[in-house]
Amino acid sequence: MGLETYWATDPSEVLRVRQGFRLEEVEPRGTPGFAGGRKEAETSLAEGAAIFAEQQEMLFAGNQMGDDPRRILLVLQAMDTAGKGGIVKHVMSAVDPQGVQYAAFKQPTDEELEHDFLWRIRKKLPDGGMIGVFDRSHYEDVLIAKVRELAPADEIESRYDAINEFEAELSASGVTIIKVMLHISMEEQKARLLKRLKRRDKHWKFSPGDIDERMLAPRYREAYQMVFDRTTTPHAPWYVVPADRKWYARLAVQHLLIEALEAMRLDWPVADFDVEEQRQRLMVS
Amino acid sequence: MGLETYWATDPSEVLRVRQGFRLEEVEPRGTPGFAGGRKEAETSLAEGAAIFAEQQEMLFAGNQMGDDPRRILLVLQAMDTAGKGGIVKHVMSAVDPQGVQYAAFKQPTDEELEHDFLWRIRKKLPDGGMIGVFDRSHYEDVLIAKVRELAPADEIESRYDAINEFEAELSASGVTIIKVMLHISMEEQKARLLKRLKRRDKHWKFSPGDIDERMLAPRYREAYQMVFDRTTTPHAPWYVVPADRKWYARLAVQHLLIEALEAMRLDWPVADFDVEEQRQRLMVS
Repeated sequence: MGLETYWATDPSEVLRVRQGFRLEEVEPRGTPGFAGGRKEAETSLAEGAAIFAEQQEMLFAGNQMGDDPRRILLVLQAMDTAGKGGIVKHVMSAVDPQGVQYAAFKQPTDEELEHDFLWRIRKKLPDGGMIGVFDRSHYEDVLIAKVRELAPADEIESRYDAINEFEAELSASGVTIIKVMLHISMEEQKARLLKRLKRRDKHWKFSPGDIDERMLAPRYREAYQMVFDRTTTPHAPWYVVPADRKWYARLAVQHLLIEALEAMRLDWPVADFDVEEQRQRLMVS
Repeated sequence: MGLETYWATDPSEVLRVRQGFRLEEVEPRGTPGFAGGRKEAETSLAEGAAIFAEQQEMLFAGNQMGDDPRRILLVLQAMDTAGKGGIVKHVMSAVDPQGVQYAAFKQPTDEELEHDFLWRIRKKLPDGGMIGVFDRSHYEDVLIAKVRELAPADEIESRYDAINEFEAELSASGVTIIKVMLHISMEEQKARLLKRLKRRDKHWKFSPGDIDERMLAPRYREAYQMVFDRTTTPHAPWYVVPADRKWYARLAVQHLLIEALEAMRLDWPVADFDVEEQRQRLMVS
């Protein structure tokens, strides 16, 4: 318990969105709280992975044996190439896949569009004992929907309140919500998109639409600022994680997960059977 | 491509259930096809993980960019403690969690019991480009259901045909089905259950019902033999994997997955855009 030893200062303190937060003041190449470089970060990520895995197993066990309803929801939002997929791959792969529920939200289907924007989100919420990871989320409905005017302005306006109510309800039912925006610079995004175009095994990750979206980056930043202003709550905080250095973003998100799990004060569930009695039954079986 | 270098002979040839197969002839401590021990197996598993991960990424990419509908369904069946969870953790964790859909089938709910036994299974089938893993499956409906007489004999009898039809339909729609029974000895199961009873952090994995099931092991073996006799088909083969040595079972299942992926002759999808045109757009953006 306590801050993992490789942090100089608690990154969540720095990364957490608070009153007066301005996205434009965040340095995408920064590594708040971490004094080392890539090498040290990789070692630290492996060290953190063991802590993360044990905490996750206790969360899972508490639900399996004790019906503990608590769970975690990690919401990942970002511009293309910021590294959402890498977080899933390099952070979440440390824990037992049985305990992770992953959901990616792409362009809504016709059926989804017929319902309230939270309808498809509710269907993918993590069960008790699980860690849910949303690759994009209901925030797309106040991000791309706002930038590309996919819904009337008053409808979008009403969604901030709907989101706050929804998240309050989740929180009350035992969901620890961690909302992360991965923040990369325009230069870094250009470099990453170029790399996707250069490599035949990366073409599938590229779409011409990525450049269209990139050209709208200033409007997206405004939309994100509005999201932070309107949906930062004590029970569902936002964290803006500098993501130009992938190794930093992964280590920081891993820390947010560890911190959330440790705050639950988890322990191994107490057996609901007589251990010695079962041992004797087993010995003669 | 081709057999991974660390196999002496192709294990799938030996493990595959064929005409005349007898479960009682399988040695649970065996390591067919592998000449090394635990150490070598761990090194080999890491080597295989890289092959597995690249193949899986091509499967996923082909669906994302090219709408390739193909996918894999790995069905895991076994007695308690045989290591289904360990397979998920140690084999599947090699690949991107975004490409894996995991489903555990426990005692059916009241709602599930109101429907045909395949109803809940159909809802959890993997999407195109994905690897689906079933921790238990529709085979419970001819295993525990038969042993504990949870359904009339003629109903159970009709299920073998229903399963074969269902799996033929899946196969025709692009699903490569790999059915694995992990086979452990009674002695090894006793040792593993004892370990769960001894360790406070493993109590949650134990249930007194595990011993009840253990006492029915001879009847389960008969029910498995019937499953092999009735549901072994060219498009949905069974593999019986000796599982007293966890490291062997993991390496063998990893191989079955690699083999299935390689048989698909996957490649990186061809870009559906003009790469040079996009590069120029990007440079000025």
